[in-house]
Amino acid sequence: MDSYLIHVNGHGNHAPMLDVNLKNTGNILSSGKVKSRKPRWAVRASEMSKKTFNPVRAIVDSMKVEPNPKKAMISLSLGDPTVFGNLPTNDEVTWAVKEVLDSGQYNGYAPAVGYQSCREAVAAYYNCPEAPLKAQDVILTSGCSQAIELALAVLANPGQNILVPRPGFSLYKTLALSMGIEVKLYNLLPEKAWEIDLEHLESLVDEKTACLIMNNPSNPCGSVFSKSHLQEILAVASRQCLPILADEIYGDMVFADCKYEPIATLSTNVPILSCGGLAKRWLVPGWRMGWILIHDRRDIFGKEIRDGLVRLSQRILGPCTLVQGALERILNQTPPEFYHNTLSILKSNADLCYAALAAIPGLRPVRPAGAMYLMVEIEMEHFPEFKNDVEFTERLISEQSVFCLPATCFEYPNFFRVVITVPEEMILEACSRIQEFCEMHYQGAEGAQDLECDK
Amino acid sequence: MDSYLIHVNGHGNHAPMLDVNLKNTGNILSSGKVKSRKPRWAVRASEMSKKTFNPVRAIVDSMKVEPNPKKAMISLSLGDPTVFGNLPTNDEVTWAVKEVLDSGQYNGYAPAVGYQSCREAVAAYYNCPEAPLKAQDVILTSGCSQAIELALAVLANPGQNILVPRPGFSLYKTLALSMGIEVKLYNLLPEKAWEIDLEHLESLVDEKTACLIMNNPSNPCGSVFSKSHLQEILAVASRQCLPILADEIYGDMVFADCKYEPIATLSTNVPILSCGGLAKRWLVPGWRMGWILIHDRRDIFGKEIRDGLVRLSQRILGPCTLVQGALERILNQTPPEFYHNTLSILKSNADLCYAALAAIPGLRPVRPAGAMYLMVEIEMEHFPEFKNDVEFTERLISEQSVFCLPATCFEYPNFFRVVITVPEEMILEACSRIQEFCEMHYQGAEGAQDLECDK
Ligand SMILES: Cc1ncc(COP(=O)(O)O)c(C=O)c1O
Ligand SMILES: Cc1ncc(COP(=O)(O)O)c(C=O)c1O
Repeated sequence: MDSYLIHVNGHGNHAPMLDVNLKNTGNILSSGKVKSRKPRWAVRASEMSKKTFNPVRAIVDSMKVEPNPKKAMISLSLGDPTVFGNLPTNDEVTWAVKEVLDSGQYNGYAPAVGYQSCREAVAAYYNCPEAPLKAQDVILTSGCSQAIELALAVLANPGQNILVPRPGFSLYKTLALSMGIEVKLYNLLPEKAWEIDLEHLESLVDEKTACLIMNNPSNPCGSVFSKSHLQEILAVASRQCLPILADEIYGDMVFADCKYEPIATLSTNVPILSCGGLAKRWLVPGWRMGWILIHDRRDIFGKEIRDGLVRLSQRILGPCTLVQGALERILNQTPPEFYHNTLSILKSNADLCYAALAAIPGLRPVRPAGAMYLMVEIEMEHFPEFKNDVEFTERLISEQSVFCLPATCFEYPNFFRVVITVPEEMILEACSRIQEFCEMHYQGAEGAQDLECDK
Repeated sequence: MDSYLIHVNGHGNHAPMLDVNLKNTGNILSSGKVKSRKPRWAVRASEMSKKTFNPVRAIVDSMKVEPNPKKAMISLSLGDPTVFGNLPTNDEVTWAVKEVLDSGQYNGYAPAVGYQSCREAVAAYYNCPEAPLKAQDVILTSGCSQAIELALAVLANPGQNILVPRPGFSLYKTLALSMGIEVKLYNLLPEKAWEIDLEHLESLVDEKTACLIMNNPSNPCGSVFSKSHLQEILAVASRQCLPILADEIYGDMVFADCKYEPIATLSTNVPILSCGGLAKRWLVPGWRMGWILIHDRRDIFGKEIRDGLVRLSQRILGPCTLVQGALERILNQTPPEFYHNTLSILKSNADLCYAALAAIPGLRPVRPAGAMYLMVEIEMEHFPEFKNDVEFTERLISEQSVFCLPATCFEYPNFFRVVITVPEEMILEACSRIQEFCEMHYQGAEGAQDLECDK
C-alpha cells in the first residue's frame, strides 16, 4: 500500500513553486526520497469552473459603486420585473400553484423532460398551423437558462463556434465558454432598430459553426424583429445550413403598435430550438420554469438531437413539479388583461423614458418596441471626463445614485441599458437625475476641444 | 460572400460515408468543384450528449417488460416515496409554500447560490460544534442532483478520475462521464453490511484522483455506516489528501436502533462537500430543492473552490424561489413525529420484507438500517434458467408482475434492489409472489447439477 503514498492528486508537489512541473513520476523518482514522501493537500478548482465567467458580475463587482448618500438609490440595472412590486404576477398564476399544493399530487419526481400533460399544455399553447407542436416537441427546463444550456450542449462540441448577437444577453457566452465552445459575435445595428447586420453575420460562418443564437424580442435592446427581417435571418441560416437557437423568452412581449412573430412560424426548413419560459411574461422569474420547443419539420435534427436533449435532461432533471403542475392553468387561465396591462405599463414607461433621454444633449436612446429594456448611446466625445460607459455609469452612481448597466456587459461599449419595469415616478426621477448628470459633464464641441488642447 | 458557401458545419460532406474524413478544406479543394458546392444540412448531436448515459434507463428500456396480464403490476423499482400516497409530506411543509405564495415576495430572482436568509436557515439547521456552518458555507441547488453536479464540476477536470461506490447510485457515473471524468469503482462489502472495502478503495487512488464520492445512508443498499467506519474512511482520505463528496441525501433517515453521523462531524482536516436536500426526508423529490454544505476547517478548499462553486451556480441559477422561501419554516416547523412516523413505516416494511425474502431459498437479502431500499442477492447457481439479475427480474415481471431493479443498474450483478416505501400490503403481496417465482425456478444442488449434465 506504500506505493499509493506517492500520490500527488493531480497537483500535489514537494514545494508549492514546483506545482506545474512536478506532474508525474520522473522528477519525483530522481529525488531519491520517493518512499518517504506523503501526498499533500492541493485541491484546485477545475478548469471549467474557472472558464465559467459571468461578465455582468465581473464588471459590476469591479465598479466602485458608492452611491451619493444624499440621494436614494434608484437601480435600473436588474432584469427582474418583480423587485418594486409594481408588476405583480396575476392571481390566477398564484392560485394555480396553490391548487397543486392542495392536491398533493405533484410532490414526486416528474420525468426528466417534464410531465407529459404539462408538455402537452405548452405544445397546445404554442401550436399553430405554420409551426405545429406536439408534447414530444417540448422539454421542460429549470428556467430559460437551462433551456439554453441544454440546447447549446446538444448542438455544439468543444472547439466548435456559435454565432451570438452583439449587444446580447451575456449568458450565451458564459455557457459557451464554460463548455469550451467559441463565441463569434455578430453585430446588431442601432440605426436599423437593432436589426442583425446580415452580411456580418454570414461572414462569420465557418466550417466549425454549430448554430446561430438569435434573441427576439431582445435583451438588452428592447427591439422586435419584423417578419421580413426574420425571413432574411432564416434565409442566411438556410443557405448556411445552420440550426437556430431562438431565445424567445420575451416572446409576445411587444408593444401594441408592433407584432411578434415566433421565428419558427416563418421557416419551412431551418431546424429551430426555441427557448422560453414563464419568467418574463408571467412575471415569476424565480420560479425557474422554462422550456425548449423543438421545431424540425424537415427532420434535420431528427431522433439524434431529440434523444440527446432527453439524455441531457436526465443529468439534473427539470423544473419544480409544483410549477409544472400549475402550468396548464397558468397558460390557459391567465386573463388577457393581465398581459395587456403589463405591456401598457412597459410601453408607457418606455415612451416616458425615451422622450426624457432623447432630450438630453449627449445621449441617444434607441426606441424600444418590446421586452423590458432600452439602450442609450453615450456620445463619448461630449463627455471627455469619462473613458467609457463603465466610468460614465460608475459616476452616475456616485453622483446621482442611479444605477444603469454599462453596455460593456453586453459587449457593446459606450451604451448603457435602462430597465423599464420600475415604477413611473422612479423612471422620471432617474431620467431627471441623468439629465442633471449629463448637463454637469457635457462638453460642447468647443469644450471638448479645449480639453484636447490642455493635454 | 461566395466563399462561405464552402461551409460544412463541422460534419458536412459530399457523400455521407465521408463524414469523418472530409473535415476541412483539403479534400474539398482538390475536388475542383469548390465554388459550386453548397453546405448541406448535417446537424449532429454533441459528443457530450452522447456520453451522457443513464444506465438505469438503458437497462430498464432494454428489458422486455410485459407484465403478466392476470396479476396487477407491483413496482418496487422507483426511488420515489410519493407514488403510492402512503407517505405524504407533512402539512407544515405544504403550508410553508402556501404562505410564500400568499406573500408574493418570492417570485423574483434569488441570488444564484440562493437567498441569504435561506442559506442561513440551512446552515443553522445543520450547524453543530464539530462541524460549524455559516450561510456562506451553503449553496442552494436544483435538487441534490445539481448539488452533485456542481461539486463534481468544481473538483474534477476531464481526464481526472473519481472514486465511486459499487454498488452505487448511477448518477455519479452519468455525470462524471458526461464531463469526461473517469470513474473508478470501489467495492462495498455485503457481508460487512455494505462497508467500504478500504483496501480496495485506497488501491484505486492515483495521481489523477480528484475526489472520493461516498454515499451514506446508501442507495441502493439501505446501509448506514458506523462512526468507526466513517473514521476509517476519513483516515484514507486524509492519508491520500482526497477531498470527499459526501452524498447525504438520506441523512437522518436511519432506523431507531442505529445512529446517523454526518461525516463532516468526524473530520478535523479532510475538506468535504456534503450534498443533501428536501427530496427524501421531507418526501418532496419533485420540488428540486438541494444544497451543498461546504466543510473546510483547514481552509484546503479555500477561496478557489468556493468561488468556483459560486461561478458554476451562475450558469443556470438554483432552485425555485417558492421552495427557497419556505425552507426556513420547513426545516424548523416540521414536527418531529413526521420524521419518526416515516422511519417507523420504513423500518416495519424493511423488517417484513427482509424476513419474507430471507425465508426464500435462493435469495439472500441484506438487512437495511436506513434509507428506503434493500438489496437482495440472487444465488444464481440455483436459478440456472437465468443468465443474470437482468433476466431474473425480467421474468419476475412477466410471470409475477413484480418489478424490482436488477442491481446491474448499480454495477452490481446478481442482486436486485427492493424499494420499501410502498404500502405494507404491497410489500407482502410482492414478497409472496417473489416466493412463488423462486419456488418455481429454484434448482437445488442436485437439480443444478442435472442441468449441468444435460449440456
Ligand atoms: C434574453 C434572455 N434569455 C434568457 C434569460 C434567462 O431566463 P430564466 O430566468 O428563465 O432562466 C433572460 C433573463 O434575463 C434573458 O434576458
Ligand atoms: C443517493 C442519491 N443521491 C442523490 C439523489 C438525487 O436527489 P434529488 O432528487 O434531490 O436530485 C438520489 C435520488 O434518488 C439518490 O438516491
